[in-house]
Amino acid sequence: MADSPFIRDVPAAQALAAWHSACAAAGCPDRLPAERVRVEDAAGLVTAGPVWATRSSPPFDAAGMDGIAVRAADTIGAAETSPVYLPPAGYDVVDTGDPLPPGRDAVVMREHVHYRGDEAELRTAVAPYQHVRSIGEDVAVAELLLPEGHRLRATDIAAAAAAGATHLLVRRRPVVTVLPTGDEVRPIGAEPGTGEITDTNSLMLATQAREAGCEAHCLPIEPDDPARIARAVRAAVAGCDLLIIVAGSSAGRDDYTARVVAELGTLAVHGVAVRPGHPVVLGAVGGTPVLGAPGYPVSAALTFDIFAEPLLAGLAGTAPRRRPRITARLARKLASPLGMDDWIRVRLGVVTSEVSTDGLLVVPAGLEGYHPGEQVEVELLRGADEIARTIVAIGSHDLVLDLAASALRAQDPMVTLASSNVGSLGGLVALRDGLCHLAGSHLLDPATGEYTLPYVDRILGGADARVVRLVHRDQGLIVAAGNPLGLTGIKDLAGAGVRYINRQRGAGTRMLLDHELARHQISPDAVDGYAREEHTHLAVAAAVAAGRGDAGLGILAAARAFGLDFVPVTREPYDLVVTAAALDSPLLAPLWALLAASEFQAAVTGLGGYSTEEMGRRIR
Amino acid sequence: MADSPFIRDVPAAQALAAWHSACAAAGCPDRLPAERVRVEDAAGLVTAGPVWATRSSPPFDAAGMDGIAVRAADTIGAAETSPVYLPPAGYDVVDTGDPLPPGRDAVVMREHVHYRGDEAELRTAVAPYQHVRSIGEDVAVAELLLPEGHRLRATDIAAAAAAGATHLLVRRRPVVTVLPTGDEVRPIGAEPGTGEITDTNSLMLATQAREAGCEAHCLPIEPDDPARIARAVRAAVAGCDLLIIVAGSSAGRDDYTARVVAELGTLAVHGVAVRPGHPVVLGAVGGTPVLGAPGYPVSAALTFDIFAEPLLAGLAGTAPRRRPRITARLARKLASPLGMDDWIRVRLGVVTSEVSTDGLLVVPAGLEGYHPGEQVEVELLRGADEIARTIVAIGSHDLVLDLAASALRAQDPMVTLASSNVGSLGGLVALRDGLCHLAGSHLLDPATGEYTLPYVDRILGGADARVVRLVHRDQGLIVAAGNPLGLTGIKDLAGAGVRYINRQRGAGTRMLLDHELARHQISPDAVDGYAREEHTHLAVAAAVAAGRGDAGLGILAAARAFGLDFVPVTREPYDLVVTAAALDSPLLAPLWALLAASEFQAAVTGLGGYSTEEMGRRIR
Repeated sequence: MADSPFIRDVPAAQALAAWHSACAAAGCPDRLPAERVRVEDAAGLVTAGPVWATRSSPPFDAAGMDGIAVRAADTIGAAETSPVYLPPAGYDVVDTGDPLPPGRDAVVMREHVHYRGDEAELRTAVAPYQHVRSIGEDVAVAELLLPEGHRLRATDIAAAAAAGATHLLVRRRPVVTVLPTGDEVRPIGAEPGTGEITDTNSLMLATQAREAGCEAHCLPIEPDDPARIARAVRAAVAGCDLLIIVAGSSAGRDDYTARVVAELGTLAVHGVAVRPGHPVVLGAVGGTPVLGAPGYPVSAALTFDIFAEPLLAGLAGTAPRRRPRITARLARKLASPLGMDDWIRVRLGVVTSEVSTDGLLVVPAGLEGYHPGEQVEVELLRGADEIARTIVAIGSHDLVLDLAASALRAQDPMVTLASSNVGSLGGLVALRDGLCHLAGSHLLDPATGEYTLPYVDRILGGADARVVRLVHRDQGLIVAAGNPLGLTGIKDLAGAGVRYINRQRGAGTRMLLDHELARHQISPDAVDGYAREEHTHLAVAAAVAAGRGDAGLGILAAARAFGLDFVPVTREPYDLVVTAAALDSPLLAPLWALLAASEFQAAVTGLGGYSTEEMGRRIR
Repeated sequence: MADSPFIRDVPAAQALAAWHSACAAAGCPDRLPAERVRVEDAAGLVTAGPVWATRSSPPFDAAGMDGIAVRAADTIGAAETSPVYLPPAGYDVVDTGDPLPPGRDAVVMREHVHYRGDEAELRTAVAPYQHVRSIGEDVAVAELLLPEGHRLRATDIAAAAAAGATHLLVRRRPVVTVLPTGDEVRPIGAEPGTGEITDTNSLMLATQAREAGCEAHCLPIEPDDPARIARAVRAAVAGCDLLIIVAGSSAGRDDYTARVVAELGTLAVHGVAVRPGHPVVLGAVGGTPVLGAPGYPVSAALTFDIFAEPLLAGLAGTAPRRRPRITARLARKLASPLGMDDWIRVRLGVVTSEVSTDGLLVVPAGLEGYHPGEQVEVELLRGADEIARTIVAIGSHDLVLDLAASALRAQDPMVTLASSNVGSLGGLVALRDGLCHLAGSHLLDPATGEYTLPYVDRILGGADARVVRLVHRDQGLIVAAGNPLGLTGIKDLAGAGVRYINRQRGAGTRMLLDHELARHQISPDAVDGYAREEHTHLAVAAAVAAGRGDAGLGILAAARAFGLDFVPVTREPYDLVVTAAALDSPLLAPLWALLAASEFQAAVTGLGGYSTEEMGRRIR
């Protein structure tokens, strides 16, 4: 066994503070150096000192409207019934922004001026300085324009330029270097062999750093060799403000990050009470902060947010960017270990682990979770408007829903169709509980041989549910290419030596299997692997493709995606269940229109194993 | 008079739709062309087609923890009192991410493994696939990874790379060209002469375009010459996806934008029902959309948000970025003209027109405003966390508050001191109404000759108010350099030929003037300019510097800032009024610490005209 450096569950805030102290003690700079840049080059940078106005804006009393400049006193008494007429010497035509001519102190809008010959006719009196923008109205000389530590936006640099600045004192842009490590890690573009993984973390962390306003560089991948890693770290810290070492941060055999940091400099923290992201290394080498990030991508991304972002903002002397938050009601119970800040990726109403997450919810270390209905604060990863136009589908998974999601977005960038796969039964329960707009379902009632409707009655009860047919699709056994075991159907599953990959309880495909097993009078106990559950057709196909099993019930499209063979078992309907209110809502209208479009139907047919004959038909 | 093209108050949504139709009719592309870029170069760009996974992630069953890989069946029966011992052939040491060795189906965390010689001791049984990340658990082959029209973030491109993508099909980055026009407009860096202004709009609009993910270029400034502008427009549209012409968009003499657009292409809209930002031109020339933006900077910035941003997002096939919103309670009545969407810059609790605004509030065209206490939705321009650590000061203006604001920020980037200048009296009323944390006040009670306290009693009544002295400061007459009129004090203001610049009612300086006039038995009517009000010391100094008046009462620092002369009148205290609760709050603690710091006191003394002898003293 390799020797194990200490791993402690240091709470995140305490870990950050310890890192900060260690960096200060190791001679890391408190702030980045200040430099003068042209206002044109200052966007996104942070002020290194206050910006005082050296010029007023507007720089003179100016017309605030297009019209004529007058002396207000000359207009006294003007009324609808008794207009005042100004001779040409009594007014000047001005455009918005023009300086007020000498002797004038008000502007009359062109829309309110009539002419009698060259005399201007006014039917209302004007007050002094009406429609005049006074000198210094926006900014006066010597006024504080921007404080130190302010991240410059477009309007800031324009205001600074208007107030006389041609250059601004800003903090140098932070430089972040990413050092990937690991024998099994291959660069993007190289096809990974068995047991190897692609280095996507370097790209992600460097991009996160750029999104945070930094300059970022990625080094070549170093193998699990402490001497080589140490050499790379020593060289890297000389040229950056933060070094991120990827992977090698837990306590396994090949995890040298903590050891290298301790040997070359100061190891402040190894292991934080954050889930996911637990095996984090925080330290300093050669006067440069060093962060060791875990190799699991979700953890690596979170580690950047929690540790790198505040450090980099501090170096620039500004506040870290914070994502907007909303208050949400938890739809289901959420358990969480004590002693860890638990960062949960959430989707409106449901907990999910997908790429397209709506937001992040933190369960603090001191809580064991939340009860359904509790108010929680969610950090938004997508815009609230976009979330509002998201069709939430919970239930059975089908590739046609993926295809629809992409087609809907291509038509209207504001529309999102987000699917969570919890099986047909779970979908109907979620629809009943108001957690989704539609539930994909293909539930066979063994008693009647009827699909969907008996379950809708049973679960949604008196609720006003509507059912729209999506497709008919072929279900069958997904088997290895060439069908090496020569399987012909469900009855062969009881044979010895067939490793089956099952779907989870509540999935329509699981119920179809149970129905078919009963029909063939096969006990589930006779099926090797019956207890091993996967949650999607694609996961079943992936398991067969990986040789982890010999057969699993699923759809033809999933078999095709993995280049596998397929033994047909049945053709079944797949339906979308919605509430009566949702059926005619504007939110779902684009979906119904899509189902009627012949190009979409052709694309579905092209997937193989689908019939679109009844697509869009209202079953109830 | 110049001929006037039509200006119509077209509602914003209708104007956008008309522009969109006109662009389509004029042959502008609906979407930007698609191109394949390396995943490394795709951040911030928008997908031009769906991204399907071509590789599963993880690509194999992998250890989810550091520890040992085992066969779950071998651990059955393990318990604290009856451990199971696995021989070396019965386990493999694995690190997080390692492939599961053949024959193993679960992982035991290293923390839960003890060793007896080379045998692993387990005290609990493990379930199959415990701590195993299944092949395809994150993404399975053929799964929809990202839809079309998705703006790529760091985690998206990393997920795409993990799923096998080396390149992504994205929309080309939109190119925006900005064409500034106007005889009076000078480039940044050139000192503007009388009546001239600096072209800050080009920089601002180009930066806004870059913030929106575009490539942006600025052309040289064209004078108000339709033939030259037309030539520049014709050349520019060939090389960009959106041309923004700055200024020249209203209906004044020199406003040629609308005419040029109509002559060269299609003029869709001229004038929108949005305030500020009314004189907008929307059209198309040579198959390229053209936007004419008003020259007033606040209007120009808003025009980009309302019109350019949605157009550019549409070209990229994605949703426009939207800022986060919060719900706020209006603190005071807000009037707004019917028929215009009125965009109001707001500060927490108060309406303001400053650079550092917290958010935007839209009063729709159909409303005449809001009542105090009404719930409104505010679009946030700053982070909610930052707003929460903002000390809001409302009341009299003093440069020492500006200096304090900058010093506080330099110490802690999260702290903001935001001042609104409404005069001493207004500040006490705002404090009473709970709209601010502190009120700057220098109110002289003519009856007693006492400052601040009598007014605190009168306005805050029984409320538990505390008073902290900020400074003593010199008040006097701000006069032109060299004091050409030879003014010696208040008594000279009644003299003929002295044009006075007054402060607004409720300002402490206004009350000081009234007090001094009464003392010298001068009637306000005898003071020329008594009715002309400015709202800050600096505005008074600016007016004197511009020659708009001969004298105004104000502080020495304001006179110095403009290089003016100063005739002392009195030395007065300037106090900060706070509630008893706020006095000891953590929010204000950094301010009290600052007032005690000798470096800060030295900086204040350096401004001139201030005494810091009683700085920070509790008067009550």
